[in-house]
Amino acid sequence: MTLDEKKEKAAAWFRDLQARICGAFETLEDQLAGGPKADLPAGRFEKSPWERPQGDTPNTSGSVLQGGGTMCVMRGRVFEKVGVNFSKVYGTFSEEFAKKIPGASENGGAFWACGISLVAHMQSPLVPAVHMNTRMIATSKAWFGGGADLTPMFERAEDTSDFHAAFKGACDKHDPDYYPEFKDWCDRYFYLPHRGEPRGIGGIFYDYLDRKGWDDDFAFTRDVGEVFLSVYPQIVGRAMNADWTDEEREYQLVRRGRYVEFNLLYDRGTEFGLKTGGNAEAILMSMPPVVKWP
Amino acid sequence: MTLDEKKEKAAAWFRDLQARICGAFETLEDQLAGGPKADLPAGRFEKSPWERPQGDTPNTSGSVLQGGGTMCVMRGRVFEKVGVNFSKVYGTFSEEFAKKIPGASENGGAFWACGISLVAHMQSPLVPAVHMNTRMIATSKAWFGGGADLTPMFERAEDTSDFHAAFKGACDKHDPDYYPEFKDWCDRYFYLPHRGEPRGIGGIFYDYLDRKGWDDDFAFTRDVGEVFLSVYPQIVGRAMNADWTDEEREYQLVRRGRYVEFNLLYDRGTEFGLKTGGNAEAILMSMPPVVKWP
Repeated sequence: MTLDEKKEKAAAWFRDLQARICGAFETLEDQLAGGPKADLPAGRFEKSPWERPQGDTPNTSGSVLQGGGTMCVMRGRVFEKVGVNFSKVYGTFSEEFAKKIPGASENGGAFWACGISLVAHMQSPLVPAVHMNTRMIATSKAWFGGGADLTPMFERAEDTSDFHAAFKGACDKHDPDYYPEFKDWCDRYFYLPHRGEPRGIGGIFYDYLDRKGWDDDFAFTRDVGEVFLSVYPQIVGRAMNADWTDEEREYQLVRRGRYVEFNLLYDRGTEFGLKTGGNAEAILMSMPPVVKWP
Repeated sequence: MTLDEKKEKAAAWFRDLQARICGAFETLEDQLAGGPKADLPAGRFEKSPWERPQGDTPNTSGSVLQGGGTMCVMRGRVFEKVGVNFSKVYGTFSEEFAKKIPGASENGGAFWACGISLVAHMQSPLVPAVHMNTRMIATSKAWFGGGADLTPMFERAEDTSDFHAAFKGACDKHDPDYYPEFKDWCDRYFYLPHRGEPRGIGGIFYDYLDRKGWDDDFAFTRDVGEVFLSVYPQIVGRAMNADWTDEEREYQLVRRGRYVEFNLLYDRGTEFGLKTGGNAEAILMSMPPVVKWP
């Protein structure tokens, strides 16, 4: 397979995963059968394609960014706000930024990046928020990265163990070392040093995956997406019909502040996007709909 | 005057300004005579002193930070949330961080920093949010920094011109070059490149001020504080009794998101505080009480 064929194959899969996740989340909207929001209409995704202007003029960040994506957002009765974004961008990193990305300086800064990125903020404080993203990046090197992490406001042991078991399963199919390594990476990554707090109960995080040949690395990335698609709806379904109290809701809104702090202070994806002059609306789709710092 | 005497004099003034600002803001709380919140009780500041543990063990950021401060917070009927913080901290910067601070590397990283920092988020969307801060910093060099900027949700020409006129007055007393220079610095600093938006209508921003001798530099910094104390309450008083609509309130909550984005993505004070292992609660007191990213 040529690199171009690999890119095409990966992009097609990311796009397909986006569609299937949106479908699964809309099904959950249909299935809601209890709790304070049950009388609202079931939510549906709004799809907004976006495209960078053609041309090779560097943007204000000094990078040249072309390509585009599709931003899918749903504001529903189960999902208060969920963004499922697909993007395929390419161009040339600024010299400074290229230094931070493996293989980019060797290539005059040229890059190609494609992936899916998802953040869900839920109506119910009893249903965990979640993040998932997988991507393929090519400079003079090529690799996969991604992961998923769960942020319950009120931890439920069953959710935590199911979430970890799902990703352990995906990892173990490929390498017994993956799960301990990527779980640990996740714990270190999704951590707020200024609060001395983890963001949630973790999951897996991996990057620069170029280890067992492209086919296996891609198959692993697909497995990560597939287990996400099976485990998260199960966790949502478990708690979405329950009532919640005003106190639980307040607590959720305050905890969401930690999510904002993490994403704006530390998240590399956010930094990558904003520093390369990416689509701010799509990148900041991860921000919660309502937040309190009381 | 020895450096120690200068530090003491500056610290005493920052502390005094904090008390006078809190007094002026409480007076506004008493004076509220209209609008949807007029039936609530007038707000009062809560004062929380905080202190870093003694000792010279580096914290997780690699810096040694000692000293403390007083966090004054009011959740009132005019001021939805306002923090007026005084802090006096000292210690040793990590080697990496020392490189970014003038005169710090020459001094083994030793520093002393004292100042007042204020952010006000208002109940009424018709009353502008505001930020003000002044500080003295000493490494092997010593300087003043600070400024103030106004963030109206709905700009009112009178507020904008009064705010700028006040700071121009403070600047012109000391140097005709100060106002154009510091206004321009403010416009460049309080800018969100990822949005292509200024944070508000500006004001002044200055740093590394070590220009006309300590006495004049300190007198200038005092003048900045004094004009803030006279102009902002005047702007608040002008609009605080008016009614507002739900649409105006919604717009305010969304605009507050920009404030969060700026403070967490770009603000050097926030970065300085969090990267030296400062008091996260005091630093993040600048976060708005309720925010929406719809």
